[in-house]
Amino acid sequence: MTLLDHTHNPAARSWLASANLTGADFPIQNLPFGVIRRRGSNEAFRGAVAIGDQVLDLAALAKLGVITGAAGDALQQAAKDALNDFMAAGPDAWRTLRHALFDVLKEGGTAEQAVRSSLIAQADVEHRLPSRIGDYTDFYTSIHHARNVGRVIRPDDPLTPNFQWLPIAYHGRASSVVISGTDYHRPHGQAMPPGAKAPVYNACTRLDFELEMGFFVGPGNAMGRPVPLAQAEQHIFGMCLLNDWSARDHQFWEMNPLGPFLGKNFCTSISPWIVTMDALVPFRVAFERPADEPQPLAYLDEPGNRAAGGVDVQLSVGLESEQHRTKGLAAAEISRTSFRHQYWTIAQMLAQHTVGGCNLQPGDLCGTGTISGPTAGEAGAIVELSQGGTKPITLAGTGEQRTFLLDGDAVILRGWCEREGAARIGFGECRGMVLPAV
Amino acid sequence: MTLLDHTHNPAARSWLASANLTGADFPIQNLPFGVIRRRGSNEAFRGAVAIGDQVLDLAALAKLGVITGAAGDALQQAAKDALNDFMAAGPDAWRTLRHALFDVLKEGGTAEQAVRSSLIAQADVEHRLPSRIGDYTDFYTSIHHARNVGRVIRPDDPLTPNFQWLPIAYHGRASSVVISGTDYHRPHGQAMPPGAKAPVYNACTRLDFELEMGFFVGPGNAMGRPVPLAQAEQHIFGMCLLNDWSARDHQFWEMNPLGPFLGKNFCTSISPWIVTMDALVPFRVAFERPADEPQPLAYLDEPGNRAAGGVDVQLSVGLESEQHRTKGLAAAEISRTSFRHQYWTIAQMLAQHTVGGCNLQPGDLCGTGTISGPTAGEAGAIVELSQGGTKPITLAGTGEQRTFLLDGDAVILRGWCEREGAARIGFGECRGMVLPAV
Repeated sequence: MTLLDHTHNPAARSWLASANLTGADFPIQNLPFGVIRRRGSNEAFRGAVAIGDQVLDLAALAKLGVITGAAGDALQQAAKDALNDFMAAGPDAWRTLRHALFDVLKEGGTAEQAVRSSLIAQADVEHRLPSRIGDYTDFYTSIHHARNVGRVIRPDDPLTPNFQWLPIAYHGRASSVVISGTDYHRPHGQAMPPGAKAPVYNACTRLDFELEMGFFVGPGNAMGRPVPLAQAEQHIFGMCLLNDWSARDHQFWEMNPLGPFLGKNFCTSISPWIVTMDALVPFRVAFERPADEPQPLAYLDEPGNRAAGGVDVQLSVGLESEQHRTKGLAAAEISRTSFRHQYWTIAQMLAQHTVGGCNLQPGDLCGTGTISGPTAGEAGAIVELSQGGTKPITLAGTGEQRTFLLDGDAVILRGWCEREGAARIGFGECRGMVLPAV
Repeated sequence: MTLLDHTHNPAARSWLASANLTGADFPIQNLPFGVIRRRGSNEAFRGAVAIGDQVLDLAALAKLGVITGAAGDALQQAAKDALNDFMAAGPDAWRTLRHALFDVLKEGGTAEQAVRSSLIAQADVEHRLPSRIGDYTDFYTSIHHARNVGRVIRPDDPLTPNFQWLPIAYHGRASSVVISGTDYHRPHGQAMPPGAKAPVYNACTRLDFELEMGFFVGPGNAMGRPVPLAQAEQHIFGMCLLNDWSARDHQFWEMNPLGPFLGKNFCTSISPWIVTMDALVPFRVAFERPADEPQPLAYLDEPGNRAAGGVDVQLSVGLESEQHRTKGLAAAEISRTSFRHQYWTIAQMLAQHTVGGCNLQPGDLCGTGTISGPTAGEAGAIVELSQGGTKPITLAGTGEQRTFLLDGDAVILRGWCEREGAARIGFGECRGMVLPAV
């Protein structure tokens, strides 16, 4: 686990005023990575770091020659059109570049005028996926979500016996992972209506979102060589927000016995900025497992994970209907929770993923599974909030009701870390809108 | 569906004698594609076609300039270090190149001496994966396998209600797909022993193979744009053999409710040569669904699929123990079946995969699921052959017994098409060996 250093000092300020505003997602202590170009241009995509309301164009910065040595080498990797090589470079490279970027962006930094020329307003850029995602894996690590959804499918026995013993996961579809702001069409598929004798082919009638976080793999592991838990975080580059859109009617009909497939693979959205594990150091929390519950087997347990395996990320889900947009109203907040409630840590997820020898590669994406907290208002999916579609929720602002998502509904995930004595670290937003079925 | 043409004429012969031998896997009517270099060299990998006991090095052939025009363009694509671009080029390009290769390899072809210089003995080459596999999907389309395995997990209700209504699938792990000849270590993982109160961390005690075929995606489809069944085969480049190695103790503990994960993702082996759909034209068979069983919904039904959606590929599984190798004995054949028994066709699999809008990309790999025929000796996994590990099978040659795979066991899959009035089309072999746990 990385230690606190001067880049976490909450008193540190940038010469860029928008980075110092209270409540800013991207102060100088954050420095999340993404891939950008000027909106609507045909420029080459390149790496960038968010700072205040600007992005620092790393390809332009690299040309200035103000960052040299090992940090300069890391900058060259981070400036490419995908971050895979930078992710592969490992924690020392990540930290070296973080410190160098902090130095050029801090108040009193010597190269301010030169570096200013490498800024572009966030409003003027478009993103693409930060890495070429070789494989995408989705975990299932909220016990509250597992119980809530389990009740819909298996009322007598909502939690499967394995849940408390291992971080369950399934392979997802890498090709349909899209960047925030990409809308998608309501999917068609096969569903079995209650009481019917034969399934129907339909446009999804129970469309849902899933509030998740994602994490990106840094250095990979060779096939047949598991990553021990104590080393797992050295293989994790950083985190983002992730919406694992779900067609519940299709999913529940198809998923026995081999798991979700078409119910999930039509679209998965991620936020454009990857917040590094370095930036999250002030927000690590103990991994807490109640004494009366199964304790992890030895390969899923070690002191560092127990002491600080968790991350306290505040999370919020907004639903913005066509009415909200027409009337100029803010999206209705329909859920609010924290990532700290997860039953397994991201290090445990990565260690479990490799325990049988599965090889991870730089730039691979893992989802944490839906994040639902212990109370009803903390549920990370509308199937939970509406109790399986039986109790509609009411949207603030318009008073509309929802059991599942309607065409024109946009879902906006937000995440941020805040506590006394630390600078706020924001994740920005992950947005996507449901278009009518084709 | 492609029609028969002169390249399927069983009387056609090559100037290469080994291509004309009775029982050869790679006569001039086959021409399967792979990616090779000289064994043990550090040459660049490049595309190749198998012919007799040789491979035709397509990069060397392209330099000769004997194939020009549209076929020459396709040859340039097929000569690259991965076949993705050639796969993306589509059926017309595939067929044009097939015809041109047939012309230069046939008896009396004008460029024989030049083309001979582009041959390398198969014994002298090594392969890598024929494409960069973006995503790997595994289907579950043998009703006999589903019933056999279902009995182990759910004795009362072996076949899930969805099986006869849609081709079930799950996403597999692309990073651990390896080429035939790659050995792997017995995986560790978590299992729940019968009657135990807590799971154990162990080296797999119920290691299995799965006899499957794979098919490669040619041109992809855009996200949100399903491929109709009638067009599905235009998106399929060709087929190979596939062994979906399975750790049954880990798999059965982990897979409820999200499906197989670590039980499968430690290794998946494929044969090196992709037999094109063009080469398989003489072996297409009707898609037969008994009248008293559910008939496919309209989007999974069309006349071409009914008339010739199936493929009659003969399949064999060999198990070669250390004793077989020490004594110089041939592998014991432990199963023999045909792909024609599958409950769903590859066109139905591809159409179903895209029905919700999931985008497929050139070079993606799909597995058909374990191929088990209607009788006991036709089972495509050892968990079926040994009835869940309760009835050991006896290996021909050595008389050894097996319930599951032991260290040192190599599994060799073979496939071929044969019928009166057509040239034999072989798939070669897919081999892998179990190494001891690390």
